[in-house]
Amino acid sequence: MSFKVPYSHLRRLANQLKRLPGIGERGAWRMAIDLASSSPRRARDLAKALIAVTEKMALCGKCHNLAEGELCWICADPHRDNSRICVVEDALDLFFIEETGAYKGLYHVLGGLISPWEGVTPQSLNVRDLLERVKVGVKEVILALPSTLEGEATSQYVARLLRGRVKVTRLGRGLPVGVEPEFTDPITLRESLRSREEV
Amino acid sequence: MSFKVPYSHLRRLANQLKRLPGIGERGAWRMAIDLASSSPRRARDLAKALIAVTEKMALCGKCHNLAEGELCWICADPHRDNSRICVVEDALDLFFIEETGAYKGLYHVLGGLISPWEGVTPQSLNVRDLLERVKVGVKEVILALPSTLEGEATSQYVARLLRGRVKVTRLGRGLPVGVEPEFTDPITLRESLRSREEV
Repeated sequence: MSFKVPYSHLRRLANQLKRLPGIGERGAWRMAIDLASSSPRRARDLAKALIAVTEKMALCGKCHNLAEGELCWICADPHRDNSRICVVEDALDLFFIEETGAYKGLYHVLGGLISPWEGVTPQSLNVRDLLERVKVGVKEVILALPSTLEGEATSQYVARLLRGRVKVTRLGRGLPVGVEPEFTDPITLRESLRSREEV
Repeated sequence: MSFKVPYSHLRRLANQLKRLPGIGERGAWRMAIDLASSSPRRARDLAKALIAVTEKMALCGKCHNLAEGELCWICADPHRDNSRICVVEDALDLFFIEETGAYKGLYHVLGGLISPWEGVTPQSLNVRDLLERVKVGVKEVILALPSTLEGEATSQYVARLLRGRVKVTRLGRGLPVGVEPEFTDPITLRESLRSREEV
């Protein structure tokens, strides 16, 4: 679906918005039309916020999380447990894990997952400096990657590189909290049986 | 859900994005993080597209559709049937109706729906100039408003204003194409019985 509307500026905006994560063709047009219809100030404020983020933010020189300055707020915090590194696909996963409050270690953002059909090779991920980081006082690397094909492949790749150098774990698999077995797919159910715990 | 991340620029961007239609808290953060993590050029291109739209686009002086210049491409087209006006909530609905290719008349964009609990009164909608437009050679006004509470209230309000001046119709109600009666809600089913057609 792409509207046959004779307005190149609107189309260009819709095309830009379509490249955002989770935004489809219809959502991009809805946003573009909404922005074009409402007060110019709204679009200008958004443009300003975008420019500010490009100018003020960078990636942490140590873990590749988002940062203002050289290090992110986690790597800059002396109270974090630096014997543990949690490996995540992107900063969003890091933010969600931080929200739990259950983890006090450091992170390492890979910047993607291995995906041959999307041209993402192990070389294009932030793996090399993870190996460097592991050399100094790290006891455990926790792989918190998605339980998808690409996530599994990437977990196995990273685990193989680290084997023998450091303890490698991954997030537990099983029933999401609040979900009944009857609504769980067979692969998750099988994993939950394998990872059963004594009560 | 709002992340306790100490980055005001990122938070500001997420807050701006959250005001876009169909974007929730999580989606806004996902987009903000994605934009902050990827090349600065991407965010700058989006900012440029936003500024271009604010500078080049306005609302049509006749029907309130989006326009480059004084009139939109529909009002400016001499081949449209100007005896019919289709009333829509916003430009997005207009674009979707245009996509069907089934309508060759003009439009009138109300710019919202009456909603007392959101402070949208009939006075804040583009109704007054619809009454003016109807005076000159218009035979039919088609109400293409949502079949929601607010949509129905607005349809009834506009229909009451126009009654006696022009023929007023609304979009047909019934089963969406490809949907079985058993999966249709009772109100739609009742409407489809009422609007049954001889075959």
